[in-house]
Amino acid sequence: MAPVRPICSFLSTLRSFRNGKNISYPSGSFARNRSTSSHSRERAWWPWNPTRNFFVIPAVFILAGATFSLPRSREVHAESPQEPGKRLIRLEEVHKHGRDAENVWVIKGDGVYDITDWIPNHPGGEVILRAAGGCIDAYWKIFAIHQKQDVYDILEQYKIGVVDPRDLIDGEVPHDHVDDPFSSDPERDSRLIVHSKRPCNAETPAAEMEDFITPNKIFYVRNHLWVPRHGEDAAKDYQLTIETYDGEEKKYTLQDLQEKFPEYTISAVLQCSGNRRAHMSANARTANGIQWNVGAIGNAEWTGVRLRDILADVGFPVGKALDTEARHVQFSGSEAYGASIPITKAADQYGDVILAYKMNGNPLPPDHGYPLRVIVPGHVAARSVKWVNKITLSDEESTSQWQRRDYKCFGPNQGPNPDWDSAPSIQEMPVQSALTSLKYISAHSSQSQRKWLQAYGLEEDSVLLSGYAFSGGGREIVRVDISADDGRSWQQAELLPSDAKGSRAWSWKRWRCILPNSQVGKVFVIKAVDEAYNTQPDGYEAHFNFRGNLTSGWMRVENKPVKEVSE
Amino acid sequence: MAPVRPICSFLSTLRSFRNGKNISYPSGSFARNRSTSSHSRERAWWPWNPTRNFFVIPAVFILAGATFSLPRSREVHAESPQEPGKRLIRLEEVHKHGRDAENVWVIKGDGVYDITDWIPNHPGGEVILRAAGGCIDAYWKIFAIHQKQDVYDILEQYKIGVVDPRDLIDGEVPHDHVDDPFSSDPERDSRLIVHSKRPCNAETPAAEMEDFITPNKIFYVRNHLWVPRHGEDAAKDYQLTIETYDGEEKKYTLQDLQEKFPEYTISAVLQCSGNRRAHMSANARTANGIQWNVGAIGNAEWTGVRLRDILADVGFPVGKALDTEARHVQFSGSEAYGASIPITKAADQYGDVILAYKMNGNPLPPDHGYPLRVIVPGHVAARSVKWVNKITLSDEESTSQWQRRDYKCFGPNQGPNPDWDSAPSIQEMPVQSALTSLKYISAHSSQSQRKWLQAYGLEEDSVLLSGYAFSGGGREIVRVDISADDGRSWQQAELLPSDAKGSRAWSWKRWRCILPNSQVGKVFVIKAVDEAYNTQPDGYEAHFNFRGNLTSGWMRVENKPVKEVSE
Repeated sequence: MAPVRPICSFLSTLRSFRNGKNISYPSGSFARNRSTSSHSRERAWWPWNPTRNFFVIPAVFILAGATFSLPRSREVHAESPQEPGKRLIRLEEVHKHGRDAENVWVIKGDGVYDITDWIPNHPGGEVILRAAGGCIDAYWKIFAIHQKQDVYDILEQYKIGVVDPRDLIDGEVPHDHVDDPFSSDPERDSRLIVHSKRPCNAETPAAEMEDFITPNKIFYVRNHLWVPRHGEDAAKDYQLTIETYDGEEKKYTLQDLQEKFPEYTISAVLQCSGNRRAHMSANARTANGIQWNVGAIGNAEWTGVRLRDILADVGFPVGKALDTEARHVQFSGSEAYGASIPITKAADQYGDVILAYKMNGNPLPPDHGYPLRVIVPGHVAARSVKWVNKITLSDEESTSQWQRRDYKCFGPNQGPNPDWDSAPSIQEMPVQSALTSLKYISAHSSQSQRKWLQAYGLEEDSVLLSGYAFSGGGREIVRVDISADDGRSWQQAELLPSDAKGSRAWSWKRWRCILPNSQVGKVFVIKAVDEAYNTQPDGYEAHFNFRGNLTSGWMRVENKPVKEVSE
Repeated sequence: MAPVRPICSFLSTLRSFRNGKNISYPSGSFARNRSTSSHSRERAWWPWNPTRNFFVIPAVFILAGATFSLPRSREVHAESPQEPGKRLIRLEEVHKHGRDAENVWVIKGDGVYDITDWIPNHPGGEVILRAAGGCIDAYWKIFAIHQKQDVYDILEQYKIGVVDPRDLIDGEVPHDHVDDPFSSDPERDSRLIVHSKRPCNAETPAAEMEDFITPNKIFYVRNHLWVPRHGEDAAKDYQLTIETYDGEEKKYTLQDLQEKFPEYTISAVLQCSGNRRAHMSANARTANGIQWNVGAIGNAEWTGVRLRDILADVGFPVGKALDTEARHVQFSGSEAYGASIPITKAADQYGDVILAYKMNGNPLPPDHGYPLRVIVPGHVAARSVKWVNKITLSDEESTSQWQRRDYKCFGPNQGPNPDWDSAPSIQEMPVQSALTSLKYISAHSSQSQRKWLQAYGLEEDSVLLSGYAFSGGGREIVRVDISADDGRSWQQAELLPSDAKGSRAWSWKRWRCILPNSQVGKVFVIKAVDEAYNTQPDGYEAHFNFRGNLTSGWMRVENKPVKEVSE
């Protein structure tokens, strides 16, 4: 039996949150600055409730130094028939207080905690419910941000007892009650360069980036959480919910989508906003986040159905999107991730936003969103939500931290606690380029390498450079300039032809340049120009941003094999 | 009577050009590389025929060093009953050989020339017909490119006689036969900084650029030719021709447009691609063209009708533009200018391309396109064709030099005779910013200036900087970074609120920054960031292009009144 505790008012608050009712908030809210309609407030609590007055954790994995603090207007009630923390509770009893129970309990160590009141304030949102009715230890190991005294202190206030010693083995809760959220993560190709395993963040090695299409197995993996459990029947059982602006819901199975809407294939780059962050850290100051080299980017063919067609099917006037009150399309992934894009992009007849079920002609791999993901070509990959199961039309952006915090850029002087609202969420990306291969070719090289000398009519020993260039918003790359003398003089790389698909230039351009050894100095420089004639900034320091997003300073490479500079 | 000359085959060739029939071309053609359809060829001769094998003059006013040469496959026939060049011809006779005559004659000095055969090869296109039946001297004075021996030699081959001495006064053709194409040019505001008078190129002084809306009188003027004759009845008599992809024509009076289509107002920047060219010349190398400072840009409210609505009215499927063969929309101005934009921009529901008849609430001034001009917001102003009288749907770009030559950017190592086709025509513009005002404020300043100290809570003597920032493609400016120490440290300028109109961010952002004198060094630096997080390049040399287009390096300003640096 659940203990009776006088926290009814909190419970009713929680229920209000869960049921989407409009309730009053303490001052200093975050979402309210962006939208004051009751419509938006009703949605704002999930997956991360930003309408509370506490310090927010910008990136649970990444940002050290953030702290939890309690909402101002709250008091902690921790009464029970026994002295708090002394009551013995059987495991069986804890299990009854799962995510759907009126009171939600978790175990930490051998302590039992009623976190009902904390859930709406949890910076990580509903993810906390994964531990409901069980042990939270595994999650706290994963999300290292929790391993701080501040966090322990918060939890301690919700303690209602300890696990009955009769249920402990060697003084610990048996491991079979610990749910590892990463247990569904797939095996990965050993060629990937792993930056973190849980969640998996791994980049494509430069040596594997020679082709226009990046193979599925070595496509970079950027997971914010775990890979959701989707068995082989997932495609059959899958259901996508579309919530209209009026709050009505319409559901589609994957089969519905495939039967109802025309199939559409585009080729498109996905690029993590942190791609080349290591170059920012090396050339300016250390930027927060995973220190990606040049491989947090890939180009694939994506096949699926157009989001625009689906929106039209639920009655949204795609031809007159700005005549409606909807301004954003929010995507939710089944693991808890969320993000959104502007309605104009979703409704654009040439925006090519698709819900993809194939990657390079095969079903999506688990790491890339099986069975269904969003592809928002030309936008930062953080908007191409994987394992998407809900799409919501709204007057405001997704309230997730990945929309409102992590994926923004600030000035070189700003941080680490900027006015987050003062910068827009990253959507379209700026012009970018990188070198991925540097090979020396001489008369002693293999025939396959020497063919390049013949192809370009060179008789001397030479160096062959190649790489990629890309710009956001479908803006085509029109020129790649290469300097072999650290930027003093320039020449144009050859832009390689490709079989790009889609209404705009969503794919990267591969480029190649071969130079006689006698003409090269100590440092190569690479920079690109897109069709709006935007160019990359020369340096790093003046474009530094503390999150290290969208690093796009000129790539400088020493005149030695790329292996040594890219690892 | 017209003399009988055995040039029938050339005449039939010319007529074929004029009637748009398909004829064969010599090798080495230019348009053919871009489009081989008979459809495009039929249109390619006007206003400038690029399908001939001669050197092309990139900018009639600007580029020195270009040369005329005859088409390879041609011979000059200059036979007449008398010895060529000796025949005496009365002025009355010359006047009969105007633009509509079978044989077109012109006078140069006292020589008479039958240029019928030359017209289709004239790099300046049909403009040459303005001199038909009269004297060409005034035009050659205007278009200084003609004042070269090569050009005289070409003309000499077409000589058929001299003006009868009975019609000469003091040995010259009377001046009343010289038609000045600039006679319709209006008076201009004396505040404009004039770079050239004929054609008029004049920029807005920085001191007059303080407001979100640039007043009509001081809006920069960038004319490629003259201001066409449009009397006060022009609006009544005006007729716009739309040529569909199938070659059908539909005509609209201005009244038709206003009655048939909803009126639409946007606020939008027009910026010449040469804006800030003087900064490129000063910081890298001298770039070809008018040495504009920061004033070849302005922001106005434009009222008119949507091009998209008109295209729909002539039967073009605007919702499925890419399903058609049309790829470009070509605009022709009544003075001879021509340019085009991609069909996707014209058909975009949020592209906001309009045919404007009002500028800031008043009828368009003559210099800005009265009675009708195109406004292509977010694109370089060279595509917002003034005095538009014809719009053509085509599978290729406008064949004008302003589309295929002048308005392109090449690498810092390229020029002055690059592979013109290797770079795309400038359409959308990159991110840009400039300082337009620098004021020193102390206790001795006027009350209106001292109010800034109060507004920002400053008690020391200070410096107030302000200016504009803008990006193409409707990408909003999200940040302006200011350095008061030559780029070593940065802070953010205040972005001023404005009443921008339109589907996207077509207007500039005005910005302001006030700094205590004690915190400023010798050099200020200004740079901006747009919503795609594109930034401006730090320097100039690596972004140099010989045409000096789209100069967008960081603006550096010495710490002294802007008047001294901007003039």
